[in-house]
Amino acid sequence: MNVRITGSGSYIPTETVTNKDFAKHVFLNDDGTPFPLPNETITEKFHDITGIEERRYVTDDLLTSDIATIAAKKAIADAGIDPEELDYIIFAHNFGNVKQGAIQTDILPSLATRVKYDLRIKNPKCVAYDMLFGCPGWVEGVIHAQAFIKAGMAKKCLVVGAETLSRVVDLHDRDSMIYSDGAGATVIEATDEAGGILAHESATFTYDEAYYLYFGNSFNKDHDPDVRYIKMHGRKIYEFALSQVPKAMAACLDKSGIDISEVKKVLIHQANEKMDEAIIQRFYKIYKQDPPERVMPMSIHKLGNSSVATVPTLYDLIVKGEVENQQLNKGDVIIFASVGAGMSINAIVYQY
Amino acid sequence: MNVRITGSGSYIPTETVTNKDFAKHVFLNDDGTPFPLPNETITEKFHDITGIEERRYVTDDLLTSDIATIAAKKAIADAGIDPEELDYIIFAHNFGNVKQGAIQTDILPSLATRVKYDLRIKNPKCVAYDMLFGCPGWVEGVIHAQAFIKAGMAKKCLVVGAETLSRVVDLHDRDSMIYSDGAGATVIEATDEAGGILAHESATFTYDEAYYLYFGNSFNKDHDPDVRYIKMHGRKIYEFALSQVPKAMAACLDKSGIDISEVKKVLIHQANEKMDEAIIQRFYKIYKQDPPERVMPMSIHKLGNSSVATVPTLYDLIVKGEVENQQLNKGDVIIFASVGAGMSINAIVYQY
Repeated sequence: MNVRITGSGSYIPTETVTNKDFAKHVFLNDDGTPFPLPNETITEKFHDITGIEERRYVTDDLLTSDIATIAAKKAIADAGIDPEELDYIIFAHNFGNVKQGAIQTDILPSLATRVKYDLRIKNPKCVAYDMLFGCPGWVEGVIHAQAFIKAGMAKKCLVVGAETLSRVVDLHDRDSMIYSDGAGATVIEATDEAGGILAHESATFTYDEAYYLYFGNSFNKDHDPDVRYIKMHGRKIYEFALSQVPKAMAACLDKSGIDISEVKKVLIHQANEKMDEAIIQRFYKIYKQDPPERVMPMSIHKLGNSSVATVPTLYDLIVKGEVENQQLNKGDVIIFASVGAGMSINAIVYQY
Repeated sequence: MNVRITGSGSYIPTETVTNKDFAKHVFLNDDGTPFPLPNETITEKFHDITGIEERRYVTDDLLTSDIATIAAKKAIADAGIDPEELDYIIFAHNFGNVKQGAIQTDILPSLATRVKYDLRIKNPKCVAYDMLFGCPGWVEGVIHAQAFIKAGMAKKCLVVGAETLSRVVDLHDRDSMIYSDGAGATVIEATDEAGGILAHESATFTYDEAYYLYFGNSFNKDHDPDVRYIKMHGRKIYEFALSQVPKAMAACLDKSGIDISEVKKVLIHQANEKMDEAIIQRFYKIYKQDPPERVMPMSIHKLGNSSVATVPTLYDLIVKGEVENQQLNKGDVIIFASVGAGMSINAIVYQY
């Protein structure tokens, strides 16, 4: 028995925010002092490092669970299954629903419950829960689905990753330009068909790394200290990711028994283009090779970093033929890989 | 191979809040009008229905993840394992860390990450994630641990349930008297020893029930509408629980192949004494029997409803000999059962 992705869907929010839209932001250092460069220079440097030209935000009326439902409906239609057959709805996020203009996280009921409600599924044996695992949440959700299937507890699972980071950013922090909103969903099924998940790898590094990504105060010291935002120690994350992600990917590939030459695509969390490029270089270096051209499709330029949504969205766009010069053919081996808050890292070697 | 609880621990917060402590609260109806009874009558009726005399709150300096760590340390010591051997830390909660005096939920990084950090575990292969599944979160976490063990992905898992509901209550809502704080933790291991988990049952009812428990506004209409609290439709939950929980418990028991006469204890979520008594009556009625005396140990009188923490705390108190006239002997069959937001229901038939 194998475990395969049988359908995918995504939601690309409609509001395009360009780097120029940050021209009037008042960027500060973390100590509250003015950042000593004009915004034009800041956004240029930002673009050079992250590759991000634009990001997408949801309209004011939408919540994380709403866009998740849209992606979920597409994935279910794509898989051609009856939603009543789903054994699990696994929803990965990190901030819950945050209403426009409010600061509270709403996770009661869970977002998985809301998606199930919105899908009008009646079957109570479809178990709905949320999982918090940083940006690698969707990949980890697929690993959960695989566990339930292998343990004989499930045959069909919906795994969703959705986030509206635009609701939790500190506008005085240059890192706010990285974050975006999005949703990706997949149906994971037990099947007799060959391929699917060949190996997985999962880890959480906390000893020194637990608070590299955290919920912290605005750089503007006049803000209420009880209002917090997504914050990160970018340099530390960069170094950590470079040192650990290639190793995790290699451990996963070695476990699968697949030769590096057979890897057609690496779908990696869209966190930062320079970081992702350095990771892929180091990964291939482990096998004393250079990365083949176009092995690492990127969506970050136009979509930014939408946390848990980046990997399933990228997968969905590729299989739907919406990424230029990128496609997957039956039998192709791909690697999903992600890194984020926790610090969590995971990878899946998957045969399409 | 079997799956057993090999250690448990709990944290009972130190602040005792009696029903009398609510004497000066201004209780309102949901439309904001004054509740038409004196507080003494309100608390008497409350006590008659729920059985709650006292509840426990954490001191101002403690967060949900802090009390979880205390319970986790006890569970690890009780199991006699090296924490570095843990393959998973699964943390069930529903509100994350909420600081005293603040209204934001802090779940970045996940609370499981914080517990792992506080335990000073170095092993990155110990995967830490949070799960949101309403009050049945700890029971569901045990079901996750079982899945990972059965799928060959884990041998030892720490499953924690912790909540500080005192930080999310509307003081104008009589239901605020139900909620309390607490933490329970267990180590779950693969073992060759007989017994352990014999069967499980898990369900999520959303079609009509998704918002029976929800995050809503204060009954005091002068409060900021963007500040929300734990809210419930108590009557609907009562009727739902009575109709569905006994059936789920019976389905689980039948799956296990164990006769009702062999069930020694039912450890049920401490939500409301009258409701729990009605559930146990209906459960035994399915088998045309009356519940044996002392089959359902209760902790609600002194500890209130601490959500995900009630079941593991009750288990821990019983096995440590801290509940009068209650004990577990080797080979005893018990049922864990829970119901809560989602609406989620689950049950485990377990041989001690």
